[in-house]
Amino acid sequence: MADEPQERPGRSAQRTDVRRLPEKQVRDVAALHAILDEAVVASVGIAVDGQPFVLPMACARDGDHLLLHGSTGSRLMRAIAAGTPICVSVTHLDGLVYARSAFESSMRYRSATVLGVATAVPADERLHALEVLTEHLLPGRWAELRAPHAKELAATSVLRVPLAEWSVKVGAGFGDDPDEDLDEPVWAGMLPMRVTYGDPVDAPDLGPGRPVPGHVTGLPDPGQG
Amino acid sequence: MADEPQERPGRSAQRTDVRRLPEKQVRDVAALHAILDEAVVASVGIAVDGQPFVLPMACARDGDHLLLHGSTGSRLMRAIAAGTPICVSVTHLDGLVYARSAFESSMRYRSATVLGVATAVPADERLHALEVLTEHLLPGRWAELRAPHAKELAATSVLRVPLAEWSVKVGAGFGDDPDEDLDEPVWAGMLPMRVTYGDPVDAPDLGPGRPVPGHVTGLPDPGQG
Repeated sequence: MADEPQERPGRSAQRTDVRRLPEKQVRDVAALHAILDEAVVASVGIAVDGQPFVLPMACARDGDHLLLHGSTGSRLMRAIAAGTPICVSVTHLDGLVYARSAFESSMRYRSATVLGVATAVPADERLHALEVLTEHLLPGRWAELRAPHAKELAATSVLRVPLAEWSVKVGAGFGDDPDEDLDEPVWAGMLPMRVTYGDPVDAPDLGPGRPVPGHVTGLPDPGQG
Repeated sequence: MADEPQERPGRSAQRTDVRRLPEKQVRDVAALHAILDEAVVASVGIAVDGQPFVLPMACARDGDHLLLHGSTGSRLMRAIAAGTPICVSVTHLDGLVYARSAFESSMRYRSATVLGVATAVPADERLHALEVLTEHLLPGRWAELRAPHAKELAATSVLRVPLAEWSVKVGAGFGDDPDEDLDEPVWAGMLPMRVTYGDPVDAPDLGPGRPVPGHVTGLPDPGQG
């Protein structure tokens, strides 16, 4: 577990290097962790006979690994578990950037890329992995749920990929307008974007005496916790 | 342009087929368009020598094509423009689903996958493509901006991929708890998620007499327009 900010000029200096706009690259592992910890879904890329596929998968960081959760039996999940190289991508959009020209207009974002090979979490660690995933996606929920049945654990496929080869790219600030555009008669600035939670909705088959728990009503919006 | 709802049992019945949970598959092209039109960034997968990469790229639908925008000169952009097969993935998260067990807990989402080969938008159509992208990302902005300079158009790389081979998957509803779990002493339901815009922020170098335009202050949240 390496939650302290640190430089990672190692493997991150290779295939994951940001060759375009390298000033946007961030080498701080705490930034990687923050981006992953704000995500509940990651885009997982895999190539099969040269054809790329990108799958949205539930994700949760467990120390210096990223857990990925999907359905047992999917052919792409099987290919991933068999050791086919993957690329995991997470991007958070933080705002629309209005520059003085279409060309300089852009977005604020934080983006993480992880390259690696995933392995299936072995059966004796699957309960822990399911707890980490559940607590990441639904914080506070694990303690009030019944324990998973053995057949549920057997039917749960969790993969993990080490956070060893990665890059982080951040687009911040405002439009980088050239001097000759600064007098254009238009507003320039940024419109922030964020993900927010609405009001909880009861399941239609919810019985009486089961109020919405505080860990749901009080769940901070993603990235605000 | 095919904005009318219609069945697409053609190529979408092949490589993009949803083999897991096929009841979640949607074959209506209007659903595809709605998912793409709510996105400003897509995850674009490409394989280079068996190694997958996933790139976040700005996107905008132009009829029955999806435009993708990145930096000229990136090696992956060049590979995409050279005809390497790609996979475009867009996922919107609509809520966290609290079932009575960790196993049945899930998310509400709408996800689109497009397989295909991208081509560079030719120079004489690039102004149109830049207008479509700008108006999609910053609705109402194009009319008030100066025209792009020729050198800006030359430095703008826009790709497009036909919306021919695709699939849409939607996770809706609540947890699918088995009968024996319905008496579990826990709340069950759904916590909605959505993307919202905050208050616009002026650029630090904004001159006087340039108020925030109505198309920014009045921009509806994504998916609400």
